[in-house]
Amino acid sequence: MMKSRLTKIFGIDIPIIQAGMAGGPAGAALAAEVSAAGGLGTIGAGYMSPEEIIRQINSVKKQTDKPFAVNLFLPEAEAVFSEDKVYVMQNKLNDFREKLGLEKKKDFSRPSFSFVEQLEAALECGAKHFSFTFGCPPEFVMKKLKKHGATVTGTATSADEAVQLELAGVDVIAAQGSEAGGHRGTFSGDPLSQLTGTIALVPLIADSVSIPIAAAGGIMDGRGIAAAFSLGADGAMLGTAYLTSEESGASKIHKHTLLNSKVPTGLTKGFSGKYARGIQNYMMEELDELAEHLPYPIQHYVTSDIRKAAAEQGRSDMTSMWAGQAYSMSKECQAGALTKQLWKEAMDVVNSLKF
Amino acid sequence: MMKSRLTKIFGIDIPIIQAGMAGGPAGAALAAEVSAAGGLGTIGAGYMSPEEIIRQINSVKKQTDKPFAVNLFLPEAEAVFSEDKVYVMQNKLNDFREKLGLEKKKDFSRPSFSFVEQLEAALECGAKHFSFTFGCPPEFVMKKLKKHGATVTGTATSADEAVQLELAGVDVIAAQGSEAGGHRGTFSGDPLSQLTGTIALVPLIADSVSIPIAAAGGIMDGRGIAAAFSLGADGAMLGTAYLTSEESGASKIHKHTLLNSKVPTGLTKGFSGKYARGIQNYMMEELDELAEHLPYPIQHYVTSDIRKAAAEQGRSDMTSMWAGQAYSMSKECQAGALTKQLWKEAMDVVNSLKF
Repeated sequence: MMKSRLTKIFGIDIPIIQAGMAGGPAGAALAAEVSAAGGLGTIGAGYMSPEEIIRQINSVKKQTDKPFAVNLFLPEAEAVFSEDKVYVMQNKLNDFREKLGLEKKKDFSRPSFSFVEQLEAALECGAKHFSFTFGCPPEFVMKKLKKHGATVTGTATSADEAVQLELAGVDVIAAQGSEAGGHRGTFSGDPLSQLTGTIALVPLIADSVSIPIAAAGGIMDGRGIAAAFSLGADGAMLGTAYLTSEESGASKIHKHTLLNSKVPTGLTKGFSGKYARGIQNYMMEELDELAEHLPYPIQHYVTSDIRKAAAEQGRSDMTSMWAGQAYSMSKECQAGALTKQLWKEAMDVVNSLKF
Repeated sequence: MMKSRLTKIFGIDIPIIQAGMAGGPAGAALAAEVSAAGGLGTIGAGYMSPEEIIRQINSVKKQTDKPFAVNLFLPEAEAVFSEDKVYVMQNKLNDFREKLGLEKKKDFSRPSFSFVEQLEAALECGAKHFSFTFGCPPEFVMKKLKKHGATVTGTATSADEAVQLELAGVDVIAAQGSEAGGHRGTFSGDPLSQLTGTIALVPLIADSVSIPIAAAGGIMDGRGIAAAFSLGADGAMLGTAYLTSEESGASKIHKHTLLNSKVPTGLTKGFSGKYARGIQNYMMEELDELAEHLPYPIQHYVTSDIRKAAAEQGRSDMTSMWAGQAYSMSKECQAGALTKQLWKEAMDVVNSLKF
């Protein structure tokens, strides 16, 4: 076993972290399976109510006594938007609703819970490892977490962001390269001017901070994991590779598309108001043509019913198909076996490198 | 010494290829120094006249008897444009000319030589290794090269392009990740939908072709080279890392900016009509705001005098500052010593990976 600072910090056997994919894919079933296999499973709790977070954590605990993490979205300044713009967007979205047999909408609903309520639910339920996206945890959050003895992983898409996170006191940097599927974590500067690939990003961050790094983005097998270590990371974070596992909560049509599509991925603000990478499809193209979207997370709320219904109806054209750039390497798998196999592959790659 | 298919194919000691950076940086001085150190130096001959190519090749041969390569741009369909559009663009460009004390222009001149004349000059002069960008070499080109016993390296930015190149008979794939500085080699599909990072691209190509791969894009030191091998490449191609070497023909202001700037890179069509990555500056921003550029290579010809004068006047704001995403790792160096050090670093990284 290679000495990795990540395995020590998290108390795990294998320096592989399953990314906290919010919106369904990363529930208790997936997190527990990855953790039980020796990696760090993660509950993607970004959109979960406090009650749901408690349910998911308790479910993981029933399945394994190994360490696991909870991923949350850091809150941003309150989204500013006008009712007029909601009306215009809903009008456009009603075209999609019609195709899916859904009721037309003029308005939208949003959840009543706050980030702090999510965080407190997870802490009270005994979560010990937290990862955050979309920002740098503010001081009161860090204090609360440290008081509970929790570890904190922050997501950085540039060396500047990594330095900010280290100064804030986080324990681990998730270095998110431009290849990564789902939402970009960029919180400092324009997300499109920071689309740095993993092979460039990891050494740049490694030269800028002293805390351990988990490389994320474009990693689908042992080759990518060995590359992450070569670049100066202490472990790898994989999301897309786990989407097609038995235990993933991704929709059937999402799994099917990952396993069978050849369409490239693209970055879109259309689904949530914040740039995220997914397989290009009709809805992404249509929404990208609009001059303006509602700010995050409002755009997410207004498109939710459409994406959910499309996934249920098996329509890949009108739902978000989050995927990293190397998704065509996806395989049907079982998440625990995959975790062990990824590590074996990485060791085999390293052993084959004899310069 | 690791067994690499690339060292065998090229007859070199170190599987490090210096990218063929056209427009001045990669002349005989740089190519000869890299080759003499055991890597594969490359003359960036894309914009050179046949006479200049012969001069450069003869100069390399005087300095070393080691193998070297010549990089050329494959010709595309004749660029279509109207004189009206040239007039509009020149009118815009005259603002830059005024700031630089240059004469205003209405027209432009372009070279009188062809790709075939460049190729024949290089072959007659005894060049044995060719690399190509912007396309798949047509059959008559492959025949001519094979008749001379030359090796052919093709540039791919996707697995599809790599397969096309293998079917055309090339010997080596340069897998150009989205991190790479300078021009994108994309020749199949939209260049912006194929911005695949190196960590995703190399395994995807390795799974699709059987010929050797040189990984390019975002590689600046031994960490990147070890990562390239981990991903399944047989060697690494570095451009930006060599730009700040003593032997590079990059302008003083280009070298200074690479060593001192913190501004991110961006992709622009403004300088040449084809997407290329460079450090963001005033001219890039101004030209990117225009709705349309002239097609490649016409846009290159109309902006040439401005970029040349700005570089000579030490102005980083009005010249192309090609750079890969990890350019902030640039160091003042000597190209031969750098080549040897890169390989030593790569070996050290590999030896440190004990899983």
